[in-house]
Amino acid sequence: MTHTAEILCVGTELLLGEILNTNAQFLCQQLSALGVNVYYQTVVGDNPGRLARAVELARARADVIITTGGLGPTCDDLTKQTLARCFGKKLVRDAQSERRIRDYFASRLHSGGMPENNLQQAMLPEDCVILQNDWGTAPGCIFQAQGCHVIMLPGPPRECCPMFLERVAPYLRALSGQTILSRSLRVFGMGESAVEERLRRRMNAMENPTLAPYAKTGEVELRLTARAESPAAARALIAPAEEELRALLGDLIYGADVDSIEQVAVALLQDRGLTLGCAESCTGGLIAKRVTDLPGVSSVFKGGLVTYCDQAKESLLAVPRALLDRHGAVSREVALAMAQGARTALGCDLAVATTGVAGPDSDDRGNPVGLVYVALAWDGGSFCRQTQLGLGRDRVRVCAAHHAFDLLRRHLQGLPLELRPT
Amino acid sequence: MTHTAEILCVGTELLLGEILNTNAQFLCQQLSALGVNVYYQTVVGDNPGRLARAVELARARADVIITTGGLGPTCDDLTKQTLARCFGKKLVRDAQSERRIRDYFASRLHSGGMPENNLQQAMLPEDCVILQNDWGTAPGCIFQAQGCHVIMLPGPPRECCPMFLERVAPYLRALSGQTILSRSLRVFGMGESAVEERLRRRMNAMENPTLAPYAKTGEVELRLTARAESPAAARALIAPAEEELRALLGDLIYGADVDSIEQVAVALLQDRGLTLGCAESCTGGLIAKRVTDLPGVSSVFKGGLVTYCDQAKESLLAVPRALLDRHGAVSREVALAMAQGARTALGCDLAVATTGVAGPDSDDRGNPVGLVYVALAWDGGSFCRQTQLGLGRDRVRVCAAHHAFDLLRRHLQGLPLELRPT
Repeated sequence: MTHTAEILCVGTELLLGEILNTNAQFLCQQLSALGVNVYYQTVVGDNPGRLARAVELARARADVIITTGGLGPTCDDLTKQTLARCFGKKLVRDAQSERRIRDYFASRLHSGGMPENNLQQAMLPEDCVILQNDWGTAPGCIFQAQGCHVIMLPGPPRECCPMFLERVAPYLRALSGQTILSRSLRVFGMGESAVEERLRRRMNAMENPTLAPYAKTGEVELRLTARAESPAAARALIAPAEEELRALLGDLIYGADVDSIEQVAVALLQDRGLTLGCAESCTGGLIAKRVTDLPGVSSVFKGGLVTYCDQAKESLLAVPRALLDRHGAVSREVALAMAQGARTALGCDLAVATTGVAGPDSDDRGNPVGLVYVALAWDGGSFCRQTQLGLGRDRVRVCAAHHAFDLLRRHLQGLPLELRPT
Repeated sequence: MTHTAEILCVGTELLLGEILNTNAQFLCQQLSALGVNVYYQTVVGDNPGRLARAVELARARADVIITTGGLGPTCDDLTKQTLARCFGKKLVRDAQSERRIRDYFASRLHSGGMPENNLQQAMLPEDCVILQNDWGTAPGCIFQAQGCHVIMLPGPPRECCPMFLERVAPYLRALSGQTILSRSLRVFGMGESAVEERLRRRMNAMENPTLAPYAKTGEVELRLTARAESPAAARALIAPAEEELRALLGDLIYGADVDSIEQVAVALLQDRGLTLGCAESCTGGLIAKRVTDLPGVSSVFKGGLVTYCDQAKESLLAVPRALLDRHGAVSREVALAMAQGARTALGCDLAVATTGVAGPDSDDRGNPVGLVYVALAWDGGSFCRQTQLGLGRDRVRVCAAHHAFDLLRRHLQGLPLELRPT
């Protein structure tokens, strides 16, 4: 059975624009992945009258109501009281929740002891399923009344999101009696519209699994989503569709169910026991930053050289002055020399390098904004990819770093380093 | 007169969680700064029936309705038709908008010419104020009907936000007959609760301007907001309040109406004609990345060395092996040697350095996660600040970079480099 949910985010701070409502996106994504319809999502302040009116509307339009926020200890936190009143439920003190809250404060060695108002968080609607909060103090809850499933979650995303994943998603899955499974394929090296063009015929024909493309900065995500009576059956539906996509897109697909292209590249380095270094001009440290965003990379990452001026390229990377004079800093020759220089300076197996024009202005040789050379050097060889990236300083830098990681993973996977024209 | 606005964000992609609704936060912030109340913000899909019902509700609860999205050329884009119908307005073709759309496509050398459905964007409600779109193709509009001001904005944030700032904000300002002016003071070096503690008495007494603190990663923003009959009168209300805050917080305030602490530090370097370099261990390129996020820094930024292993600290920064052995890489001594080494290697006037434990695990000498040494070296001296940062790898790295920029701006402003205990 297909359910319809309505999301009510409670909090005056949202209506003042003090915080970004990431919970709403997260819940919409998750509900969509669970096959639950969402037709309305509303934000309302800490005002019981206005919240009650929003609840009246929601229960006329949906059979699942999910609230975020307003479960805390202060007098602004009125979600439980209001929802309980709307559905004719009493609030009763839950002994286990009370003990958990007292323990939480005891374990944090809270200097002043526990403020008494925290116990309000242990007051929960009668006959509810309590959603234990392992990420903060306020428990959530679910109750059923008047044909509606009412689900209340805490407001802080670090509590709301795991509580949804671990406690609410299984509840909704049981409700629908279906498994919905997604697999995400990541594509680098072809724009969104070209990917769609290539897949159009297949996309339109696909019903289960469905195929949805999402444009991200400089790359495309393809999400296959299957519905079936079990996880194994869903996986069996996805597998041939994935094969088909791999046949159509080939080595443009750099990973499945991964976080980022740098994660893929670093995992390959770790597998092969090779070390990495980098030399960055236009990306200005972004490649090193993205590598070191990943925990545990010190075994493969030696370091990086951000050579933002010609003098640093010369002194740190031993790029010959003559090369800089003849070809300019933004050139294939300098990119290759930078990558080789980084290998020598850092004593690493592989090195990537970038040099280009991030903008906002073209460089003093008239090279256009977005022209970037990305090079890779390894033991016995090197390669440079020339690329003309879209406008926008941030975008140029992010895409240039993507290209560096793409060169790296292609080299480690034994794939051609040049992107074929599409 | 105080107005009440309701925000309707239109787009099925929002309800599927495909995009984060940053427009909602932006509009809430701006409306709050303009003194306009917002009691509800709703997201509805590309469905004319559901949108019409949301409009019915909104006009009963507010006298300003602001929509985002659904102004584009595809058949999903139904906002104008629906709003016009709800308020009994006809859509008429606007010749100037049509010309602008044709010009836009001509200027982009769009290979296939302009798809005809783009002209739907030139159909606008009769008697409306047209909001010219200098950031895309779909114009927005404002009309007045049945006691309501109806404002329609395009969905993409890069069009919606500037159109609001440049076209809608002046309209709303004229409506209220009041000027509302904000000034943002940025504080680094004291936690949010300590700042609030120090300001509490003043905050409670303040009515015009109001004072609101916002916690950001590792820093605090204080926003003063005044209402007056003119910008000059509003500024005159803010000035003494700002003086008072400066008296209470002193040099912890690093800037007013600025984007970031790196922006302040780099502007000081530019003023004084000094050059910068960096040596990064735990921040792994983040300092260089943040400096080079700023356009036009090549005049002051020489480069950076990301020395993620001891060997690179030795070979690139000339940190003596003995120092590394005796004190470990995470130590005051090594931080200072790294900063001095970066000055020499890069030939820059000033250099910052970081070494610490970003986590998730403590290092092999048992140093705890979050222990970071941040050093600054200049012609004739150096200084190291030891700091124990909060948990979370990303947070440790961001805060360590903040400290580096704080050392830099304090040195350039002739302030004490040590943070006083608070």
